[in-house]
Amino acid sequence: MKPTIRDVAKMAEVSISTVSRVMNAPDRVVESKRNRVLEAIDTLQYQPNSFARGLIYKKSFTLGLLIPDIENLFFAGVIRGMQDACIKLGYSLMICNTDRDKDRLLSYIDTFHEKQVDGVVFASDILYPEYYEKLVGCRIPFVLVSTHSDEYDIPCVEIDDEMAAYDAVKFLIELGHKELGMIGFNHADSVSGPPRSRGFVRAVKEFGLDHNIQNIAYASHRFEHAYQAAHELFTDHPNLTAIFCVSDEFAMGVISYLKDRNILVPGQVSVVGFDNLRMSSMFVPKLTTVAQPMYELGQRAAEKLHELLTTGMVQISKEKMDHKLIIRESSREK
Amino acid sequence: MKPTIRDVAKMAEVSISTVSRVMNAPDRVVESKRNRVLEAIDTLQYQPNSFARGLIYKKSFTLGLLIPDIENLFFAGVIRGMQDACIKLGYSLMICNTDRDKDRLLSYIDTFHEKQVDGVVFASDILYPEYYEKLVGCRIPFVLVSTHSDEYDIPCVEIDDEMAAYDAVKFLIELGHKELGMIGFNHADSVSGPPRSRGFVRAVKEFGLDHNIQNIAYASHRFEHAYQAAHELFTDHPNLTAIFCVSDEFAMGVISYLKDRNILVPGQVSVVGFDNLRMSSMFVPKLTTVAQPMYELGQRAAEKLHELLTTGMVQISKEKMDHKLIIRESSREK
Repeated sequence: MKPTIRDVAKMAEVSISTVSRVMNAPDRVVESKRNRVLEAIDTLQYQPNSFARGLIYKKSFTLGLLIPDIENLFFAGVIRGMQDACIKLGYSLMICNTDRDKDRLLSYIDTFHEKQVDGVVFASDILYPEYYEKLVGCRIPFVLVSTHSDEYDIPCVEIDDEMAAYDAVKFLIELGHKELGMIGFNHADSVSGPPRSRGFVRAVKEFGLDHNIQNIAYASHRFEHAYQAAHELFTDHPNLTAIFCVSDEFAMGVISYLKDRNILVPGQVSVVGFDNLRMSSMFVPKLTTVAQPMYELGQRAAEKLHELLTTGMVQISKEKMDHKLIIRESSREK
Repeated sequence: MKPTIRDVAKMAEVSISTVSRVMNAPDRVVESKRNRVLEAIDTLQYQPNSFARGLIYKKSFTLGLLIPDIENLFFAGVIRGMQDACIKLGYSLMICNTDRDKDRLLSYIDTFHEKQVDGVVFASDILYPEYYEKLVGCRIPFVLVSTHSDEYDIPCVEIDDEMAAYDAVKFLIELGHKELGMIGFNHADSVSGPPRSRGFVRAVKEFGLDHNIQNIAYASHRFEHAYQAAHELFTDHPNLTAIFCVSDEFAMGVISYLKDRNILVPGQVSVVGFDNLRMSSMFVPKLTTVAQPMYELGQRAAEKLHELLTTGMVQISKEKMDHKLIIRESSREK
């Protein structure tokens, strides 16, 4: 027989509500009683029943995470950070992979509602009105990571995408490149797409290289699409010597394309990526890239959600974390 | 006010237990009543409370997944398959990343116990006695994916590791290579390590190339370790012309090492990987590799666990799925 809260109370010679208080607000219990309860819990190997606990406290001590693509290594980094923070804060994490499918995402919110998760982290996707309405309708508190919303006032943590793109392009220009191109995210299905394009445009303008402004090809999130976009970009502009890519995966797709055309990287064309995936230092050539603090983004998102759940608000609603240019082998002076 | 099961029963003019039966064993309810209940659920937008449901039925409709490394793309494929199967079967999935840390893994089992998950899938790690004892002690049914146990009779689904390794090495030998090496998993912390080494040894012996038997260097699970292992292997055996790697990540580490030493792949050395990660067709050069059915492994694991949970047993206890050699650019005739 599994021990119950009754058994603990009996052994510790206290009331059931004292045992409950020790588990949920220990500083409100005098030390001698508290120690007796903790000893009894230990001796009996008592495991509180989360269903019963949930019914009493309306808390499941579980957070939900909605990510668009589990096969994208960017999210693996975010998940690690989030999971470590969850362990520290006493939550379990339920991870759901949406594949950027609206119906699937909405049905996951139903699942979260049904499981009564305490809160949700929404990662890297556009917060469509349907999503917002549904989360608010289900009364699930949530925060955003690696995305933000201009329409709704939702706490978020991300990097400064425009500045990060600007820094990468400035770096290429300072290497002496004058014919630059970019592989960007489709603006229609990406939050970071538009600011990263603006960063590219601002940098080329600032250095008097306005003729590059149109040299942007767009791709969805996978390397195959970047491969195809590179083909379009180089067909129209065969003289490009430097390409800024908005993800490491895109950079790998572009380098793969250039390799298939016998164009040397960085010998003939420099390529800069974005994210600093684990993979980027293993690629051939090793990628120069804009590092995002993936682990820290995940960690901060969990902490922010915890803050929201425990205090009802967050101190810093829109938080920006630092990016950093990592110079490796895929870029070279012109 | 959220509608309750009482409201549904009232509107449908049936008893509460009939509503409950419609949700859990609909074929035991006459059609006219069933339709009235379903209509009422729909009209009221009733969401059953999983805490309350859990208390009544002792089911949480949640499965747990223990994976060793969320940053390994092999698991991303497995997770996709498992999550899709879970959706179909009506389960939520709680994914926990253990980082191959014993204490963390044991504490996740506690969490699963506390959350009363219905069952657990244990992926790709050694089933140490502590893990087995803990899962059994918590009375959590579980199955293994991409691993197996010789000591305990636990249902599992995996590939034939020895045969897959044999096929890869045979392929290299038939290309004319006579000086072969292998980068394997450390036997101490890997289930698939020993059978894959046996596959290598069997192939070289069968073709009278016994002098290669000792040409195995071992690495942990990351590409950096494979880079280092390649350095050791090529320092001792500079004449090798073909390397079989037990993961695509290792193959990338080896190719990265050879690139840094100005050794051409596949010009001077052929490299074959294992897994067929999404990344393997994006790498430079594109990897020849042994494909594992990652998605299907995840799917089958969820189905097996469901079978175990609903019937108390599984038809096929030890299931093997097919592997397949995919020939791309990293291998060439000698």
